[in-house]
Amino acid sequence: MNTPYADIAGRFICGITIIKEIKMRQGRKNDELRQIKFTKDFTKNALGSVLVEFGDTRVITTASVEEGKPKWMDKDDPRGWLTAEYSLLPSSTNVRCQRERTKISGRTQEIQRLIGRSLRACVDLEKMPNLTITIDADVIQADGGTRTASICGGFLALKIAVEKLMAEGKILQNPITEPVAAISAGIIDGEVMLDLCYEEDSHAQVDSNIVLTKSGKIIEFQTTAEGNPYDYEQMLKIFEIAKGGIDKIIEIYNFV
Amino acid sequence: MNTPYADIAGRFICGITIIKEIKMRQGRKNDELRQIKFTKDFTKNALGSVLVEFGDTRVITTASVEEGKPKWMDKDDPRGWLTAEYSLLPSSTNVRCQRERTKISGRTQEIQRLIGRSLRACVDLEKMPNLTITIDADVIQADGGTRTASICGGFLALKIAVEKLMAEGKILQNPITEPVAAISAGIIDGEVMLDLCYEEDSHAQVDSNIVLTKSGKIIEFQTTAEGNPYDYEQMLKIFEIAKGGIDKIIEIYNFV
Amino acid sequence: MNTPYADIAGRFICGITIIKEIKMRQGRKNDELRQIKFTKDFTKNALGSVLVEFGDTRVITTASVEEGKPKWMDKDDPRGWLTAEYSLLPSSTNVRCQRERTKISGRTQEIQRLIGRSLRACVDLEKMPNLTITIDADVIQADGGTRTASICGGFLALKIAVEKLMAEGKILQNPITEPVAAISAGIIDGEVMLDLCYEEDSHAQVDSNIVLTKSGKIIEFQTTAEGNPYDYEQMLKIFEIAKGGIDKIIEIYNFV
Amino acid sequence: MNTPYADIAGRFICGITIIKEIKMRQGRKNDELRQIKFTKDFTKNALGSVLVEFGDTRVITTASVEEGKPKWMDKDDPRGWLTAEYSLLPSSTNVRCQRERTKISGRTQEIQRLIGRSLRACVDLEKMPNLTITIDADVIQADGGTRTASICGGFLALKIAVEKLMAEGKILQNPITEPVAAISAGIIDGEVMLDLCYEEDSHAQVDSNIVLTKSGKIIEFQTTAEGNPYDYEQMLKIFEIAKGGIDKIIEIYNFV
Amino acid sequence: MNTPYADIAGRFICGITIIKEIKMRQGRKNDELRQIKFTKDFTKNALGSVLVEFGDTRVITTASVEEGKPKWMDKDDPRGWLTAEYSLLPSSTNVRCQRERTKISGRTQEIQRLIGRSLRACVDLEKMPNLTITIDADVIQADGGTRTASICGGFLALKIAVEKLMAEGKILQNPITEPVAAISAGIIDGEVMLDLCYEEDSHAQVDSNIVLTKSGKIIEFQTTAEGNPYDYEQMLKIFEIAKGGIDKIIEIYNFV
Amino acid sequence: MNTPYADIAGRFICGITIIKEIKMRQGRKNDELRQIKFTKDFTKNALGSVLVEFGDTRVITTASVEEGKPKWMDKDDPRGWLTAEYSLLPSSTNVRCQRERTKISGRTQEIQRLIGRSLRACVDLEKMPNLTITIDADVIQADGGTRTASICGGFLALKIAVEKLMAEGKILQNPITEPVAAISAGIIDGEVMLDLCYEEDSHAQVDSNIVLTKSGKIIEFQTTAEGNPYDYEQMLKIFEIAKGGIDKIIEIYNFV
Repeated sequence: MNTPYADIAGRFICGITIIKEIKMRQGRKNDELRQIKFTKDFTKNALGSVLVEFGDTRVITTASVEEGKPKWMDKDDPRGWLTAEYSLLPSSTNVRCQRERTKISGRTQEIQRLIGRSLRACVDLEKMPNLTITIDADVIQADGGTRTASICGGFLALKIAVEKLMAEGKILQNPITEPVAAISAGIIDGEVMLDLCYEEDSHAQVDSNIVLTKSGKIIEFQTTAEGNPYDYEQMLKIFEIAKGGIDKIIEIYNFV
Repeated sequence: MNTPYADIAGRFICGITIIKEIKMRQGRKNDELRQIKFTKDFTKNALGSVLVEFGDTRVITTASVEEGKPKWMDKDDPRGWLTAEYSLLPSSTNVRCQRERTKISGRTQEIQRLIGRSLRACVDLEKMPNLTITIDADVIQADGGTRTASICGGFLALKIAVEKLMAEGKILQNPITEPVAAISAGIIDGEVMLDLCYEEDSHAQVDSNIVLTKSGKIIEFQTTAEGNPYDYEQMLKIFEIAKGGIDKIIEIYNFV
Repeated sequence: MNTPYADIAGRFICGITIIKEIKMRQGRKNDELRQIKFTKDFTKNALGSVLVEFGDTRVITTASVEEGKPKWMDKDDPRGWLTAEYSLLPSSTNVRCQRERTKISGRTQEIQRLIGRSLRACVDLEKMPNLTITIDADVIQADGGTRTASICGGFLALKIAVEKLMAEGKILQNPITEPVAAISAGIIDGEVMLDLCYEEDSHAQVDSNIVLTKSGKIIEFQTTAEGNPYDYEQMLKIFEIAKGGIDKIIEIYNFV
Repeated sequence: MNTPYADIAGRFICGITIIKEIKMRQGRKNDELRQIKFTKDFTKNALGSVLVEFGDTRVITTASVEEGKPKWMDKDDPRGWLTAEYSLLPSSTNVRCQRERTKISGRTQEIQRLIGRSLRACVDLEKMPNLTITIDADVIQADGGTRTASICGGFLALKIAVEKLMAEGKILQNPITEPVAAISAGIIDGEVMLDLCYEEDSHAQVDSNIVLTKSGKIIEFQTTAEGNPYDYEQMLKIFEIAKGGIDKIIEIYNFV
Repeated sequence: MNTPYADIAGRFICGITIIKEIKMRQGRKNDELRQIKFTKDFTKNALGSVLVEFGDTRVITTASVEEGKPKWMDKDDPRGWLTAEYSLLPSSTNVRCQRERTKISGRTQEIQRLIGRSLRACVDLEKMPNLTITIDADVIQADGGTRTASICGGFLALKIAVEKLMAEGKILQNPITEPVAAISAGIIDGEVMLDLCYEEDSHAQVDSNIVLTKSGKIIEFQTTAEGNPYDYEQMLKIFEIAKGGIDKIIEIYNFV
Repeated sequence: MNTPYADIAGRFICGITIIKEIKMRQGRKNDELRQIKFTKDFTKNALGSVLVEFGDTRVITTASVEEGKPKWMDKDDPRGWLTAEYSLLPSSTNVRCQRERTKISGRTQEIQRLIGRSLRACVDLEKMPNLTITIDADVIQADGGTRTASICGGFLALKIAVEKLMAEGKILQNPITEPVAAISAGIIDGEVMLDLCYEEDSHAQVDSNIVLTKSGKIIEFQTTAEGNPYDYEQMLKIFEIAKGGIDKIIEIYNFV
């Protein structure tokens, strides 16, 4: 049913890869996360920089800060702005994908809009007047869940940048209202599973992305049938195990 | 919080409109739909053509059919394909919006991907081999809920086209598995409301799009906080009133 | 000789249409117009809005007004500006045409330049200082003569917008100097015919577009051989029957 | 009224030119051509190459030939194709104009469509099967009438290329049916004048381009009001003096 | 004299960075390299993958392999092809640079052409028939010398990919003729220095890139004055210390 | 090894040319220039205009001047700016090449960056405050060495423009520090040769471009192996004969 990365490149590329055997879940329970790792200060130029890893998915997330606001904002608007950009390195995918150098695909646009919207929901933009924060999420290795990993890494990069801005006196109050995290889930052969890797994702009938705050409030809940529509009960189950996963991720934040 | 159409044009245009007083809901209950109307054969060239109206939102939806398949599909794949395109006429919005003539905005891409995905979920692509159906949704007047109206109108245009293809012997079995409909909902000042008009939408803290089949299965459930995260109970309430609305729309289908 | 819409899409698309028998002229005399209809206030958001119909050709024409002038105009120039945009809905043509989303075709550019130039010729731009009026012509059904229908509908949409601007005190004097109308004509098998439908147009050896004012002055007269050059007398005949048609259209204006 | 080259670059560029006094007509009568010169084999790589000069307007016109046909033509179509491209060198205009490197302006598209259409009207495409001829018109100095000069130079470049193709046996019969030439005319202060230079053109109320065959048949007749509509008699007068000019140009062809 | 990354983004962005004191050379002698590190298999999806570090410059270089050849190559050509793409992550530079999503800058094009040309010079394309190898160089941290680091890392990624292709029997003979390495050099205040970091580069009057084979043959030698022309002797000195640096890099290759 | 103009058009075009026998060097010694000719005031609109010819290579080079500076320059920067654009006329090449109308090729970007950089190196930008000079190099006939011919012609066009600006009092001091010239060289079958024509260039294993000042200082020295790496002695030999050629070109400058 799925066309791996075909919607990115618009066509299948006949790449050569040395085949390796792939096992799904690899012993994980249905509601179990992959191994998660956050590496602070992975690069040195952005104000905040975090390498986030969910299993074999690895994303460089950074927060860069500029003075000023986008042109479409009213000059008298007391708020600053936060936006996001997302990109796959060509070598990040199983088969090399094409660089988006002349236009951005719908998939990329959708993902970077989700990242920006999710992080804006945990920020009081009035507390960062006349500043624009850009979250960059550059996937260096893709194995499923890149958009939710980008939200988690992006949140931590944002947190680091905000702490530096406060230390420098560039902002006076912490604009972050609450920690935020995100995870993917899906339904494979009727079973609801958490944190799908690429192989699992390509077998899923239903695909879901959930973004919650530490206090359990919902920022985004998207559940999409890739082919077969699903039941109300399955939808509730997806939410339940996603909430469990997000609680664990937010715990891990404390050790970064 | 909202920036009306600013993300389409990338900037505010200082258009002149003769101001009219706007009332929200206009007597509608929270779970009540706007007046809905479907006009068959609104234009004559596409195989299926429906003008769909939800209150003041008016969209020309058509289904056009070509022989062949997209290049990215495997030649041996027994399935056909269904895709969708969405566009706002410049004059459809309150303040004239710009034509997307050099690149497509993220908003447009997101909407047309949603329409295509939703309609593919009610179609057995194996029953339309070597055919590509394109659903076009061209908004001639925008007053909120254009994407969900496009899915409803698009479904009926698809149904008409499929009936003609079957009558002509171009396809042998009906590929449509079940009727599909969609509706928007949102939260305004803490209250969950159905089928938001533009004025309501621009006051909403939470924005939701729901796509269901006649039998109540879920194709897509997206709920997004525009600013303030929301509760689990509110999410369930949104689903409940959306389901009520969709049941009514599918009833109306019978009278078209 | 003609390549239907091939210059729009740059290629033939193999679309499926249920074939209907087509008769040319359908009883019309050579100098007879098709049935013409103007529907005011077809959409509600633009300042002026008219649905124009010439037989099966149907175009939504609107006039939108913004404060300010294009950047290329001198700041001290006392005049405002009027411009036009033209587009075919993909479903408007016999075989679905492609959206112009990455570049505008030469045909589209030529048409929208003609519409703008024709309407500017009946407007005193000094009487609308610091205003830009945009005429949008969106073809929802194409059956020949879309550019001349767009000029007629566009003129009426402009007239409505101007009346509203004067009522609101946004402009003080009526900038419209005289009514303007346009019609197509052509030569088929040596006979000069008025107001060609698509089927006739695709058989024409000569293609003409004429734009006149109510007082009979010429704004634009274009006559083009598609293959065989034509005589001076034929050119005069084209002008004659076009003038007759335009006089009738301007009469119809009075009943809108 | 006119905005010199502003529609090319979309904006005025503040270029520095050492001002020279400019006189209109420079002693020419209203129906008199500027000095005309055709230089054969101006460049050596294209099959046909002509430098055409009308006064200070200088255009390199060439005819290049490829095997094959455009993709949009039917494979079984027995005809070849002829197309044209037109461009202004940045340094050709009074004030440097911008290169069209990311998109082509409406003006350029209109001109190259006119050149191609005009030359196709004097060619029997069936006599050049499976060949595509491209006429390139590159303006190296612009002083009014570049599009009509391009048609004249293009015709001669085409003629040279056709002679070489016949000598090489690449085509068997001469596809050119009749010589073709073109000239501009206009109305300045109510007077009809032939072959306008740039200074005259920028004072003209009416702008016309005429393309005729040697036998006096009409290929294209475009007359456009830049501001003030004009009379029927003026239109006839324009045609008359244009015909006189074209007869002279076709005479000059014999001496090239 | 230099405009840091301004030619990439086309403008200065006013980014916020917490200022750190920068020292040039940091104790290095004029002919001394920065610390160099190659990490094999840094990512897992490309056939060859190397993280290359020259001081604070860090580049992910990968070699991906596809069957087939570019369309411009003759079908009967017995050779395969090798090409390269280069990109800066937005967060890689001191001040965030813009993604090249609608067009590629001249700087990027120049660099990726250099990388491709340099690596093709050490490969016998006839020994990799019907294969296309793409070298991707994605800079995650930029501190001067990114193009020469990309060539070194790209060479090792290529070597790894070639070894795997030979082990799999996809190619029969090693197409690599000789190891290749590259380094930058420059003149600062009249002194010739090796392997410039960003701070040094922005003070250099002369900028040089040198690509040599292990046996000392020259693949590319580019020396450019940024302002002040330089002497013949300085040019020879640049070559001399570059050769010394390249010899050391090729030695390091043995330990990867 | 070489793909004639294939990297410009991205593909081979099957153009028809009447084959002529081509001889290399045509009696020239290895260190001998082709016949060189500079025609001043070739076109009249740019401030400086020179037609430059190196054998059959012919380039229109012009210098245009605008007030103001590029936006990326600091407002307080006391310097003006000089930039260059380069283009091949489609008919200039042996087989017609495509116009670069939607994007600029890497080859074009590289060349125009080289021309701009080379001429800036002989100009004191502080002596032309608030002025931008654009050098346009439009190749009307290409036979090898177009980029170096463009630098020579561009230098003379610049000199003429500067003299006019000084005569008009637009600049007070001559910003040109020293004459500059450029030439190509290469290695064919192991022999170092000067000023390669297209036929020679397509047989060269090594390709070099050298830009020197009258006093012998180096502005740019690029030597590139197209396939086989070369020796240090060959590199020195290239430099030596290039220097000889440049000395002669600068002598010829005196007679223009």
